[in-house]
Amino acid sequence: MEPGLFEIMYSLRAMRRLKPDRVPEDVVWKVLEAGTMAPSGGNSQPWRFVVLQDPEVKRFVQECYLRALRVYLQAGAEAAARRQPPPSPDETARQMRTRDAALHLGEHLHEAPLLLLVCMVQRDLSLLRDAQGNLRGPAVYSSIFPAVQNILLACRALGLGATLTTLHLAFEGQIKERLGIPADVETVAMLPIGYPLGRFGPTRRARVEDVTYWDGWNQLRARR
Amino acid sequence: MEPGLFEIMYSLRAMRRLKPDRVPEDVVWKVLEAGTMAPSGGNSQPWRFVVLQDPEVKRFVQECYLRALRVYLQAGAEAAARRQPPPSPDETARQMRTRDAALHLGEHLHEAPLLLLVCMVQRDLSLLRDAQGNLRGPAVYSSIFPAVQNILLACRALGLGATLTTLHLAFEGQIKERLGIPADVETVAMLPIGYPLGRFGPTRRARVEDVTYWDGWNQLRARR
Repeated sequence: MEPGLFEIMYSLRAMRRLKPDRVPEDVVWKVLEAGTMAPSGGNSQPWRFVVLQDPEVKRFVQECYLRALRVYLQAGAEAAARRQPPPSPDETARQMRTRDAALHLGEHLHEAPLLLLVCMVQRDLSLLRDAQGNLRGPAVYSSIFPAVQNILLACRALGLGATLTTLHLAFEGQIKERLGIPADVETVAMLPIGYPLGRFGPTRRARVEDVTYWDGWNQLRARR
Repeated sequence: MEPGLFEIMYSLRAMRRLKPDRVPEDVVWKVLEAGTMAPSGGNSQPWRFVVLQDPEVKRFVQECYLRALRVYLQAGAEAAARRQPPPSPDETARQMRTRDAALHLGEHLHEAPLLLLVCMVQRDLSLLRDAQGNLRGPAVYSSIFPAVQNILLACRALGLGATLTTLHLAFEGQIKERLGIPADVETVAMLPIGYPLGRFGPTRRARVEDVTYWDGWNQLRARR
């Protein structure tokens, strides 16, 4: 039986270790169609999904990704070493596990049966600029990441593992050139998708009572 | 019985007409806890939820919102009048209905039992800047809008109507001052939430086959 919405949300972990097994095409359609059901400003539906299955294309993305990941992890390690007070042993152990899983993902990215590149087409952005002419970030991206979350939830419901990544932004120009993506289209996320090697499990999060305020900043309320 | 994930997604419309009936606090906690289960970069969980229930606070937000909405609708109407070719009668009728529903929302915003302001706290953003020092928008907002979508889905599952809005960005400074929100915290979305007057119903979307490309831009594939 299909698990319920809350069960799906509460067990939706980033799945970074995937089997190379093929994902049937009707399952891919079902996952992506769920993405199209998300809300978007003025129902503009700015999403375009680029499914990468070709081994050479995936290898190209993986090589770029791994280079970017090493730079990112190095910068993260240096930032952690400077932290005062230093992280606790527990915290350090968690960081190491996350680092290992991230590296595993980077080294095996091309083995995932599919990489999903989520793109956003240019909309009429004139209404989204502030008085200084800057784009209002939240107004723009509020029309695309709900679709990404629908896709992650649909994957989980269908037994597929996935991870939301944005590190491709470090080499976005190369990817767009390789795939023929027009200049005015933005790539916003890259999701490796496949059947998971590990198990879906509980997520680790701060308590909702500690991040919820009532009628003013920092006004906490106990949960009864 | 609770509807399944796909049924929830496929019937998740923006619900702009809400009853003033109180939402029990345990239901609010359940909705917001679902939000905290979303993924975020490095599990940074940058969300803070500000629940607005105080009548004076809601009225203040409503007055600002309605002013901003009128400016927005006026600009939209002028843009539509310039469009070549002009929109079809069907399209125009749809736009009028959306406009009416938006105006209804703006005029009755303070009557919603609660307004949820979703905020994002500053993270270590140094890793999210490109070589020119610009923030990478998708990397930033990928950590907050999945939580917003979880909240919308949880509302739907529990029979609550909601709408994802970002128009408060036009008067963000005033809201932050009124609620004591620190300068380095960004408000990313405002969701009026309550029991709906209308019915949840099917969403209207482009076919997934028309927005999905395979191994390269614009490479369509038929869905069998």
